[in-house]
Amino acid sequence: MTWNIEIENIDLKKLQYEESLFTLGNGYLGIRGNLEEISNDIIKKHKIASIRGTYINAFYDDVKIPYAEKSFGYPETSQKMLNLIDTQTIKIYLGDELISPFTGEIVSTKRILYLKKGYAERIMHYKSPKGKEVLLTFKRLVSFKYKELFSQEVIISPINYYGEVVIISTINGDVENHVDKSDPRLSHNHSKCLHLKSHQIYKDYAYMLSQTESSHLKVAVFSETSVNCKNKKEISFNNNEIITKISFNLSSLTKVSKRNMYFDSLRYGEDLIKNTLLKFIEARKITFSELIEFQTKYLQLYYNNCDIEIKGNEHLQLGIRFNLFHLLQSVGKDKYSNISAKGLSGEGYEGHYFWDTEIFIFPVFLLTNPNIAKNLLLYRYNTLDLAKKRARELGHSKGISYPWRTIKGTECSSYFPASSAQYHINADISYSCILYFLVTNDLEFMLKYGAEIVFESARLFIDLGHYNKNGFNIFGITGPDEYTAIVNNNYYTNVMVKYNFKWAVKLYNILKQYNNEFKQLTNKIGLTFAEIKEFEKAEKEMYLPYNKKLNIIPQDDSFLDKPMWDLANTPKEKFPLLLHYHLLKIYRHQVCKQADTVLAHFLLEDEVDIDILKNTYHYYEKITTHDSSLSSCIFSIMAMKIGEVEKAYDYFIDTARMDLDNTHKNTKDGLHMANMGGTYMAIVFGFAGLRIKENKLSFEPKIPREVESYKFKIKYKGRIISVYVNQDSYNIELKEGKEIKIFINSKELILGNKIKTIESK
Amino acid sequence: MTWNIEIENIDLKKLQYEESLFTLGNGYLGIRGNLEEISNDIIKKHKIASIRGTYINAFYDDVKIPYAEKSFGYPETSQKMLNLIDTQTIKIYLGDELISPFTGEIVSTKRILYLKKGYAERIMHYKSPKGKEVLLTFKRLVSFKYKELFSQEVIISPINYYGEVVIISTINGDVENHVDKSDPRLSHNHSKCLHLKSHQIYKDYAYMLSQTESSHLKVAVFSETSVNCKNKKEISFNNNEIITKISFNLSSLTKVSKRNMYFDSLRYGEDLIKNTLLKFIEARKITFSELIEFQTKYLQLYYNNCDIEIKGNEHLQLGIRFNLFHLLQSVGKDKYSNISAKGLSGEGYEGHYFWDTEIFIFPVFLLTNPNIAKNLLLYRYNTLDLAKKRARELGHSKGISYPWRTIKGTECSSYFPASSAQYHINADISYSCILYFLVTNDLEFMLKYGAEIVFESARLFIDLGHYNKNGFNIFGITGPDEYTAIVNNNYYTNVMVKYNFKWAVKLYNILKQYNNEFKQLTNKIGLTFAEIKEFEKAEKEMYLPYNKKLNIIPQDDSFLDKPMWDLANTPKEKFPLLLHYHLLKIYRHQVCKQADTVLAHFLLEDEVDIDILKNTYHYYEKITTHDSSLSSCIFSIMAMKIGEVEKAYDYFIDTARMDLDNTHKNTKDGLHMANMGGTYMAIVFGFAGLRIKENKLSFEPKIPREVESYKFKIKYKGRIISVYVNQDSYNIELKEGKEIKIFINSKELILGNKIKTIESK
Repeated sequence: MTWNIEIENIDLKKLQYEESLFTLGNGYLGIRGNLEEISNDIIKKHKIASIRGTYINAFYDDVKIPYAEKSFGYPETSQKMLNLIDTQTIKIYLGDELISPFTGEIVSTKRILYLKKGYAERIMHYKSPKGKEVLLTFKRLVSFKYKELFSQEVIISPINYYGEVVIISTINGDVENHVDKSDPRLSHNHSKCLHLKSHQIYKDYAYMLSQTESSHLKVAVFSETSVNCKNKKEISFNNNEIITKISFNLSSLTKVSKRNMYFDSLRYGEDLIKNTLLKFIEARKITFSELIEFQTKYLQLYYNNCDIEIKGNEHLQLGIRFNLFHLLQSVGKDKYSNISAKGLSGEGYEGHYFWDTEIFIFPVFLLTNPNIAKNLLLYRYNTLDLAKKRARELGHSKGISYPWRTIKGTECSSYFPASSAQYHINADISYSCILYFLVTNDLEFMLKYGAEIVFESARLFIDLGHYNKNGFNIFGITGPDEYTAIVNNNYYTNVMVKYNFKWAVKLYNILKQYNNEFKQLTNKIGLTFAEIKEFEKAEKEMYLPYNKKLNIIPQDDSFLDKPMWDLANTPKEKFPLLLHYHLLKIYRHQVCKQADTVLAHFLLEDEVDIDILKNTYHYYEKITTHDSSLSSCIFSIMAMKIGEVEKAYDYFIDTARMDLDNTHKNTKDGLHMANMGGTYMAIVFGFAGLRIKENKLSFEPKIPREVESYKFKIKYKGRIISVYVNQDSYNIELKEGKEIKIFINSKELILGNKIKTIESK
Repeated sequence: MTWNIEIENIDLKKLQYEESLFTLGNGYLGIRGNLEEISNDIIKKHKIASIRGTYINAFYDDVKIPYAEKSFGYPETSQKMLNLIDTQTIKIYLGDELISPFTGEIVSTKRILYLKKGYAERIMHYKSPKGKEVLLTFKRLVSFKYKELFSQEVIISPINYYGEVVIISTINGDVENHVDKSDPRLSHNHSKCLHLKSHQIYKDYAYMLSQTESSHLKVAVFSETSVNCKNKKEISFNNNEIITKISFNLSSLTKVSKRNMYFDSLRYGEDLIKNTLLKFIEARKITFSELIEFQTKYLQLYYNNCDIEIKGNEHLQLGIRFNLFHLLQSVGKDKYSNISAKGLSGEGYEGHYFWDTEIFIFPVFLLTNPNIAKNLLLYRYNTLDLAKKRARELGHSKGISYPWRTIKGTECSSYFPASSAQYHINADISYSCILYFLVTNDLEFMLKYGAEIVFESARLFIDLGHYNKNGFNIFGITGPDEYTAIVNNNYYTNVMVKYNFKWAVKLYNILKQYNNEFKQLTNKIGLTFAEIKEFEKAEKEMYLPYNKKLNIIPQDDSFLDKPMWDLANTPKEKFPLLLHYHLLKIYRHQVCKQADTVLAHFLLEDEVDIDILKNTYHYYEKITTHDSSLSSCIFSIMAMKIGEVEKAYDYFIDTARMDLDNTHKNTKDGLHMANMGGTYMAIVFGFAGLRIKENKLSFEPKIPREVESYKFKIKYKGRIISVYVNQDSYNIELKEGKEIKIFINSKELILGNKIKTIESK
């Protein structure tokens, strides 16, 4: 049971939330788990809270950002992930009666998401007003084999009804995006950006082609609906819809099959139909069960790399697998795409990519599927020129400045104090390049891509910061904690930049041996030795705030001087604070949306001693609201680090079950991808205490008493290392590759083929 | 000649700028100096840069503020001063030839603005393509007697043409506001907010009534055009225009008269036509010369109170009078209206009222026309409830928070770091209430209005600030200098708040003697003695930043730690910085848009000794761009204060001639009202060194060598005091009222009827 998400009964109030949970995707295509029979007209008629959604990763429209007061360097346009042509609808008539939750009776129903098989199923025993009963089984799948394919199946089994059945299967081009002006995390404008351009009806199938308003991207969907018995079929077009009507006589179990393939002009060029028709012709032959077979194999490989087995808590086990499944479904696997804050499961944050990728999701793939991780970095490399341009707009004569939120690589945020001011994203991306190098030893990548990012980012920070009596300072920026903005010397930023400088110098020294390739790079970007010296100096003199009295790290220069927010007397319904208090009030108090300094201590623990780390953790824990979904995973990891195992477990629960239990109350707008990555991280970096440093792999295995045991594997420099921890012992094993020196609880040892296991406790 | 603004020739490139200069108004109605013959259709046809404008003070529409990311407490709507029905157009045909700068020849032309007589004139010798020559004299006037009346006259004198003349005089309801997305100081959206609702054509005149889109305010204009000779007249309606066509035979000098009266539903109620028709019937009888007569008398009284006579520099003299004239034309004189940043002369800042009123304009009227000054404060009092509501939105459990920009009293800014964060506006308004009291001794005003503002503002600041080891701090706010945002302990704010606290306590002690009235007030607002104690404590413990090493006042806690902006190497065309650099770059450097700490030292000089004041002045002078038009007047005053007379003179020139010489290059969008007040202040507070403190009136007369002498009068506690200063001596005289103790250059003396003059030097 720890591989299936199951929901019994239908509760229309929870529909949007379930739609997110049951999203199917493959990193290219994402389909929310909408109900086949609740089409847009039904939604409007019955005023149902449902967000019908179909998305292609990186498929966007450019939309004008509205400003009442626009200043220099504000981005003119944003990108918006569009809701595409809707193929989910399959309506069924039993004679003259439409199957609908609003007329007949749903005797029983159940939805299942098969995490191992990669498809979803919904079983419904339905009784019409006139007493006709059938059992319906809806199946759906977004294929890992044919990434453009969304396949549906409905099996109709007669219970007491035998007679005429009419199927109405539609392709609906009249689609809009979801807008909600009450929540700053949702889109406020531009609901209608996709316009139907053409369609064609063939004998058995049809296609519809739409185009975006401003980016002029095209999307086409081919769709075919068929029934496995004698039937009458008509395809027609009316009012932006292609309607396939199939009538047949229901006499025994009957299968309705619908295959939809989504192609876009980003990947398939302008001549979209011509370039893709044959792909559809090929894919339509494959059966649903063949597709499941492929899904299962594909997922087996995936889980083999990344699954975390937890014993003693099925609830948690399921949460972890649910998250890993959705990460795979959401992450882009081509050069156009990355992973958006909500994956392909909803429209929150408009499908934008954030630093979430590098700090919360990248590590998962890096340790389990390094090729996917590499693709995430390549996406950044591909937008380097845009980041360079942005840096100039921000007034920097050199370096790069990556956008805070984006799809195609340009800044999409209208509120710079919590976007462009978050310069740390450049250090975060550099950090990930370095981490990739530390885990893979991929020198070629560094020479071709990674080092350039690290150098250009270092250049930016030289230009951004300045020297004063304290050393090298960075003023007027915003750290990860968005409940504080435009501050001086945010510790997180400074320490990450210090690391960026350090590695710029290191990489220079490492890579210069590779004469030709390195010369090519330094020539290309005009890097001089004088600059390397600058990096070295700035690294050495980087100012890092420290409070002696409290023996903690202040979040920034003035953070500790602010009055505390009275969290104890803030009513529960006033969270998240950002939806109930003016930012000015939030900014002038000590209150954190999420881990900031605590996150810095996770990423770069060697900058402080354990006492500072502990004190700092305790200090910020008291004033952190975790209003950001990026928070609890980091607090879990760091609670574990300082030995507060049970506390770590509590945070871990919040992390692992965030979407399943809808604890942030906005799962309806999409799943929290970074938190899903955080779940994995909470075990691997938290429970097992994994740390990756230069030529140093270390563990500090711990286990909360609520868990019997846990087990996972990681890939590291061509090796596979497995970790097993239970209440009495742990076992770290080299599964593949050459022997390697590791550290367990600071004790050095060689993990090799001969010394296969280490037990202890 | 120092009472007339004269411009020879016509330069269409400078049209917009001249339109602002030649604006006529009376505080209620404002008409830009557009050319009668360059109507909207001509503007469009010939793509002329012209902003045709007619405005009523406080007549607005509510417009939705667009946001891409909206957070809690952001205002939903703004107000916008609307461009109203256009009655300026008078086209003249000589036979079949339209008089137009695009066809015929303008042999000579000249525009004159008569500052003493309060009207404008334009003389044009015109020669048509066919060689017909006439001399045209256009006169126009916005009446101080009938505030709704805009009166026009055209005198046509034949030179070589005698024959048919056709006059096309229009009332155009098809009007829009000016929008420009490239400048944050201008409106970006909502050009069309006023819609024609009805019209009626009578025998001799007609009216047109329009209504705003959202506020549903109505405006009606009655208009009549006539000619003083035998003629044929037709009035018709076509395509949003009422057209009066008059044909006559030109045989000698002929006068065309046009009278337009603007009424709005704010002042005249919903039944607008019924309530105002008789007013028009009455006013249409008055002749243009009678109107001029009244204007002249009215202005005589005004100048008698406020004129500053400067000898030895006509250029400057004219600048000063031009400014005083426009201040009178712009300032609201009823309970609905205040004075907007651009007066009624243009659409920059959308007709909003700012702190400009209290700090830069109020003192002018206070010392010359205290009733107008009082009305400005009453406007604030009338919007107190809205300020209370706004304070709650910002999270304050008590007190008031006045909007940074507004017409009807609600916050109209979309960018809170440079609006709602500028909490100092509350202290500024309190300061003005106190100043009013110090100058007028108007206890009744304080009991009824002023004290309530001061108390409620003090309450706000108690809630805003907090105590730490330094004392009472105010964090996370923005001071007057908008090139720095969201800082801690902005000196200006803190010292103004300290003064606010001090006077809250003082007023409590002064007013408590007036038992009944005071009880009424304290009961109304629930003021307790405990609160007074709180104010007292906070005043005493107010933290004021000070830098010992430099012996200067830092603008805020971290200002001096920032790197300096490299002003020396910033190209001229990159000013104002805000149009050429991202705010983040500006914010993290030491660079000021305007006086901030220096302004604090003007308003509250006793908080520091003269050395600090001097050092501080010199420090900030080096890093101030004066990109704000509010800056040079204050630097002029303070340069004088520290004895840098010639420097003060240079700043004064920038101030006095800002609009006449278009030094900020945006006079086209309206005149700079605060700077116009600043011109007066630069002489009275700067040159003459006037300071008003509790029971202490003092002067430090100085004079730059470029000026022979200057002379002005002020009203103070029922007295009139005249000041005359020349290169050798000064003479301060009591013109009216009881004897009074004053200080001249720190020397106490009694100014009385007997001791009439004091000479010295």
